[in-house]
Amino acid sequence: MKRTMIEMMADNNQFAGKAFLRYSGCFFKPRKTAVNNMQETSSQDVTMITCTAPVNIAVIKYWGKRHEELILPINSSLSVTLHQDQLKTTTTVACSRHFQEDRIWLNGKEEDINQPRIQSCLREIRRLARKRRSDEDLSNDISLAHRVHICSVNNFPTAAGLASSAAGYACLVYSLSRLFGVDGELSLVARQGSGSACRSMYGGFVQWKMGERQDGKDSLAEQVEPESHWPELRVLVLVVSAERKLVGSTSGMQTSVKTSKLLKHRADCVVPGRMEEMISAIQRRDFAAFGELTMKDSNQFHATCLDTYPPIFYLNDISQKVISLVHRYNQHYQDTRVTYTFDAGPNAVIYTLEDHVPEFIQVVRYFFPPETNGGEFVKGLPVGPASLSEDLKTAIGLEPVPKGISYIISTKVGPGPCVVEDPKLHLLNPEGLPKKST
Amino acid sequence: MKRTMIEMMADNNQFAGKAFLRYSGCFFKPRKTAVNNMQETSSQDVTMITCTAPVNIAVIKYWGKRHEELILPINSSLSVTLHQDQLKTTTTVACSRHFQEDRIWLNGKEEDINQPRIQSCLREIRRLARKRRSDEDLSNDISLAHRVHICSVNNFPTAAGLASSAAGYACLVYSLSRLFGVDGELSLVARQGSGSACRSMYGGFVQWKMGERQDGKDSLAEQVEPESHWPELRVLVLVVSAERKLVGSTSGMQTSVKTSKLLKHRADCVVPGRMEEMISAIQRRDFAAFGELTMKDSNQFHATCLDTYPPIFYLNDISQKVISLVHRYNQHYQDTRVTYTFDAGPNAVIYTLEDHVPEFIQVVRYFFPPETNGGEFVKGLPVGPASLSEDLKTAIGLEPVPKGISYIISTKVGPGPCVVEDPKLHLLNPEGLPKKST
Repeated sequence: MKRTMIEMMADNNQFAGKAFLRYSGCFFKPRKTAVNNMQETSSQDVTMITCTAPVNIAVIKYWGKRHEELILPINSSLSVTLHQDQLKTTTTVACSRHFQEDRIWLNGKEEDINQPRIQSCLREIRRLARKRRSDEDLSNDISLAHRVHICSVNNFPTAAGLASSAAGYACLVYSLSRLFGVDGELSLVARQGSGSACRSMYGGFVQWKMGERQDGKDSLAEQVEPESHWPELRVLVLVVSAERKLVGSTSGMQTSVKTSKLLKHRADCVVPGRMEEMISAIQRRDFAAFGELTMKDSNQFHATCLDTYPPIFYLNDISQKVISLVHRYNQHYQDTRVTYTFDAGPNAVIYTLEDHVPEFIQVVRYFFPPETNGGEFVKGLPVGPASLSEDLKTAIGLEPVPKGISYIISTKVGPGPCVVEDPKLHLLNPEGLPKKST
Repeated sequence: MKRTMIEMMADNNQFAGKAFLRYSGCFFKPRKTAVNNMQETSSQDVTMITCTAPVNIAVIKYWGKRHEELILPINSSLSVTLHQDQLKTTTTVACSRHFQEDRIWLNGKEEDINQPRIQSCLREIRRLARKRRSDEDLSNDISLAHRVHICSVNNFPTAAGLASSAAGYACLVYSLSRLFGVDGELSLVARQGSGSACRSMYGGFVQWKMGERQDGKDSLAEQVEPESHWPELRVLVLVVSAERKLVGSTSGMQTSVKTSKLLKHRADCVVPGRMEEMISAIQRRDFAAFGELTMKDSNQFHATCLDTYPPIFYLNDISQKVISLVHRYNQHYQDTRVTYTFDAGPNAVIYTLEDHVPEFIQVVRYFFPPETNGGEFVKGLPVGPASLSEDLKTAIGLEPVPKGISYIISTKVGPGPCVVEDPKLHLLNPEGLPKKST
């Protein structure tokens, strides 16, 4: 019987050490878990592993590449990793000498494995695996020649408008790395799947350093602080019902780089200082500084979208109302208690501290009255009750917009990619094909 | 009997010459007109003159002052003067030794004459008049000591959201200059009422050169081309029904100067090149170049508003739809046939050429179906019929928004301020008080 990859990795000194733990916010007991974790059927010789990876939301935004294929950005960026209890991608990867070809299923549908970005990730992981094995003379391993089957699902609806590509590519790269026993700078690989995916390779607060090298070897993610650093920080995703077709971020940022006279100035002259300020604000747990900079950077990103030709609009009237609401709320308390950021869509991501969540949720509920016959308005982390003062309502003074916000996902800062220990949770069956339910 | 100001001005060599004509897009027969034009009642000794002035719409935007009181801008700007047949301010100014104090009525309501900007204009005009008289030893004139009554009305509703201050201050300054017999660089005076008012002192295509001097003496308007230069050019004001209270431009631009990291870059590094390009496009009557630059500059202005902290939004969902519509229309024809620009509000100002007006109006009517029981949808210059091809509708492919646009004002490029010859059109009665109807 062939040894599983996890067993091999467990034997490797590096496995239990820093190199592995850097990539995992979750711990698991190497040997025992490894046995459980790999689904190996002698009839099929299928080796299988399942991992999860988080969504991240940038507070210093990435917009614009200096190299399209390598996905090298024109500026550094910084994000907060969201907790996987609420938002995650789950991916099962399997390999077997019986598989005829590489195949991939995303959210229940088979997709073209030859998409260049998926190919980049597969190629890079196989290259790293080959390199490591030749370095360490693990020539008895054969699985590199085997084809892989990949199956991936998100636990959040596409309608939530959350950039799923970051979690998706992070999960793909992490899962493949576990399968092939690869360590090293995996964020470099994930970056070539989707730029912001490199930041989903870590938990907590993560910067993507733009780097300087032409080959991109120094354009990688680094954890600024772990998820335990700021336990009071809370995240609310306000899902706005959008009718509009949005410009995709890949083509959007290409057009911005080509046409916006303001984007280059932002990248060269504004972002470097903001990265330093943001890192310092996070390290000091200074919410006012963190919040103000987050709002300013979100607005500047959308400003460069508007300066693009033809202009790109991601914020709609509801997004603008949320922005007004946040500023008026903070104004009322003479304190930055709540901050917003918007990615390439109309949904607001709100950061605030635990203590302010119940009241702010009530504010949102009051100014965007939800459908009464719908499902729960707030999903995710439970939110306590709160009352709303007439003073506060008057201070905000906006016209309520019924159903302007579909629902809220309540979450917090979370860890990086994890290995799933329970083999029942594999998305592929012993033959390496998607289970019926996925 | 005291001689009227106009008679005195008519006697002056400069009156019929360049110095006067520079400020008037309209001609009038000096002597005869002068007699008709001044309403003089022996019982009251009231000297009176009525003038009109146009609205202008910038294609290279002014946003941000380097000096608040003198109203010196951080960048040059360029505008098109709209025709007064559709949009104008009318102002009557009167002076009499019997008036006890300076007074002003705006759109039928008496306002505080002590507003600093009105005072700036009055002071500057009186200073110029005093200077000229001492230079020319016209010491027999006494009217400088007299108090003035001012009455001003717009022929367009405030709801049209057109910046009325430019036309208003241009008209005030022009009327006072005629009353007091002042010539010289009147745009310097109008600028101190409202920055963009300096551009309403000329017809056609007008640039406001930002100047360099600390005293602002070189921050003035200059005609780039007269209104006869590009006779095919047409202007459509798309009045969007807006529910929102908007941030006023004075406080808005103050906040932008203080907080936007992009605004300074725009002013210093982007606008100078655009001014040259725009002047050249106008001189060549190159609509594609004019149109593209107009759209880019409008978008960049709104981008700097969004980069302001807290952010300022003037474009709403309807504005964004108009922008999409224009780009898709042009895309369909592979030609920049129509261009948009937006000031500090949601209304679109469309520039296009005469030939494209009927079809474009039909496009607007199709995608923003007007109220059927309302008044006329298109006001102003008559627009011929046109049909709409299915191809074009499909190419634009937006969801129609009923009543998204309230009405359209159809107009063209027009002349600068004019003297009104018909004394029946004075807004003040022989006693110097507003007529009942105004």
